[in-house]
Amino acid sequence: MMHRRDFLTGASAGAVIGTVAGYGLAADGRKTVIPSASPSSRELRLVSAWAKETPGLGPSSERLAKRIADATAGRLRAKVYGPGEIAPAFGSFDAVSSGAADMYYGPEYYWQGKSRAYNFFASVPLGLTAIELGAWIRFGGGQALWDELSAGFNIKPILAGNSGAQMGGWYTKEIRAVEDLKGLRIRVQGIGGEVMRRLGASVVAMPGSEILGALEAGSIDAAEWIGPWGDLAFGFHKVAKNYYYPGFHEPCAAVTLGINKKLWDDLAPEQRGLIEMCAAAENDMLHAEFAANNAKALVTLIGQHQVQLRRFPDSVLSALAKMSEDVLTEVASADDMTKRVYESYTDFRKMATAWSEVSDRAYLELRGTTLPAG
Amino acid sequence: MMHRRDFLTGASAGAVIGTVAGYGLAADGRKTVIPSASPSSRELRLVSAWAKETPGLGPSSERLAKRIADATAGRLRAKVYGPGEIAPAFGSFDAVSSGAADMYYGPEYYWQGKSRAYNFFASVPLGLTAIELGAWIRFGGGQALWDELSAGFNIKPILAGNSGAQMGGWYTKEIRAVEDLKGLRIRVQGIGGEVMRRLGASVVAMPGSEILGALEAGSIDAAEWIGPWGDLAFGFHKVAKNYYYPGFHEPCAAVTLGINKKLWDDLAPEQRGLIEMCAAAENDMLHAEFAANNAKALVTLIGQHQVQLRRFPDSVLSALAKMSEDVLTEVASADDMTKRVYESYTDFRKMATAWSEVSDRAYLELRGTTLPAG
Repeated sequence: MMHRRDFLTGASAGAVIGTVAGYGLAADGRKTVIPSASPSSRELRLVSAWAKETPGLGPSSERLAKRIADATAGRLRAKVYGPGEIAPAFGSFDAVSSGAADMYYGPEYYWQGKSRAYNFFASVPLGLTAIELGAWIRFGGGQALWDELSAGFNIKPILAGNSGAQMGGWYTKEIRAVEDLKGLRIRVQGIGGEVMRRLGASVVAMPGSEILGALEAGSIDAAEWIGPWGDLAFGFHKVAKNYYYPGFHEPCAAVTLGINKKLWDDLAPEQRGLIEMCAAAENDMLHAEFAANNAKALVTLIGQHQVQLRRFPDSVLSALAKMSEDVLTEVASADDMTKRVYESYTDFRKMATAWSEVSDRAYLELRGTTLPAG
Repeated sequence: MMHRRDFLTGASAGAVIGTVAGYGLAADGRKTVIPSASPSSRELRLVSAWAKETPGLGPSSERLAKRIADATAGRLRAKVYGPGEIAPAFGSFDAVSSGAADMYYGPEYYWQGKSRAYNFFASVPLGLTAIELGAWIRFGGGQALWDELSAGFNIKPILAGNSGAQMGGWYTKEIRAVEDLKGLRIRVQGIGGEVMRRLGASVVAMPGSEILGALEAGSIDAAEWIGPWGDLAFGFHKVAKNYYYPGFHEPCAAVTLGINKKLWDDLAPEQRGLIEMCAAAENDMLHAEFAANNAKALVTLIGQHQVQLRRFPDSVLSALAKMSEDVLTEVASADDMTKRVYESYTDFRKMATAWSEVSDRAYLELRGTTLPAG
């Protein structure tokens, strides 16, 4: 049997270190060097819905993988696979459900073909902001409904990131009235797309990488992607100069870490708690990263690329908002699970809106009115 | 030498388990039971600036301590001490600086007597929101300045929590014009208090626990504490029925984990990374918890306690905002370090405000105008 000192100095403990390598910290709190590679570590295949080069979202999946390895002292090592490596982006969910992959990192509205309830765990038009969504999931009953929904697909879902509020999109022509939406060929995501379709737009689905080419070829008139940071990288401003706000369709966009539920259930409770903590830390970090880089990118877009910021006219916003509520009500009728999720979400939204009216909205109005424009 | 199987089943590995106890996970990913108590663990004294009973902030310090123990597999065990146990609330900083305690959990503006620069890492009037503050600290240059500031006091500071936006406070009488602030006896925090004093108010300092008694005794006319969740618990609505917004003085209130820098420097890099991750996770969780519970408490205050929500009149807000900017400019001139922090902070605020104008503000206005009042 080894003595503690032998182990901590690593002199004669090769086999055991190889088995349970961890952080070196002697009783006096001083650091010690213990190798962290471990034959008992398990490699988990994490399929990301975004390519590694996608600003924010690509690096975030790698950062989350590193967090999990660090927190478990290397016992769980997540390796990130991009779209197409194990599964296409929209196939990440099925891959994890079946066990072909262990975890996915992506937005829940990608799986709305499985259940329309998934939209509420990513973003819906006129829905919750990033902080409110996290509040509903953790402290408003959302997680229990989400667990129930995803258990039916052998998946454990955990909130793991957010982009914050998105922009309304890039338009080659100005939008002056609801009539201008008629016949407009636009790339816009999910339920927001359905809302615009009902107001007369011709909604086109395509991955982010194809948007710029479609704008250049004139096959679409407008497109939304994320916000200044991600949009600047794609270069949409080269073709469409009107950058509209607010993004009524995506007040936030949550990212989920979805884990094969059989794997999840087999983990020790401590491991599960650590993975949840890694996801919460990444949720916080990614939102902060988007907030900083969106602000910086907006300065660049306006100052260097002559982008024109435009607010949708009141009449258009009013029509978009009213139609959003109508479509959400219809979505809720898809099935019993979706209805329960919708009701919990909209009950929470009512409270959250009343609070935001006297807190963030009122504050941002005061600050925006007082400070000189950036 | 032990074999791996012996170790993982725990049969003959007593001494080693006692030394490096960790999470049990066999090579196939199944959980195993390994005791987590460890003679090599180090107990850290964490002094909290808030009593255990304080909604949100009390439990958060305990949750953060548990996160650190979990993430380090019990090697670092933080024990929470309330105000007065090792040091009074306002003495937490000195206790950690000197090594009488290892870590503090509190708001940086409590130490503005050390340097006025500390205000910017908690909250200042007309300043950054919670997400923006996290963005500035992590991705806008804030952390480097903060590290430099606190290194002078032998402290390593880490963002570890936020209350989100606060309310403007409880007033026994209505405020209809700037003149109504003259002679008003009010309990209000920090720089916000200085702003109100310059507009004629008589600003009183007292801990949260004394506010209700002072309102009842008529020795103050108004008081701000945090927001609906914390305020409801104290019962201010029993005496003052006018609940004013927005909280111009505290658009957020950050909580810091401050660590004795000698201890910090002695930790292994992995340990430091894990502590940073624990703090980020708690930052995310506490903000979500405040968002959910503020929304719920606001419903209770209005529905059950006949509280009257009132927006400060435009003329009052305009005067408060203008004076806030004047006072901040004066604060910046305190010393070189404070000036550099102010400049970095206000440069970032300019960008962040331009972004919030087209994102969160524009979105919250649309939603607040569209949805029926909660």
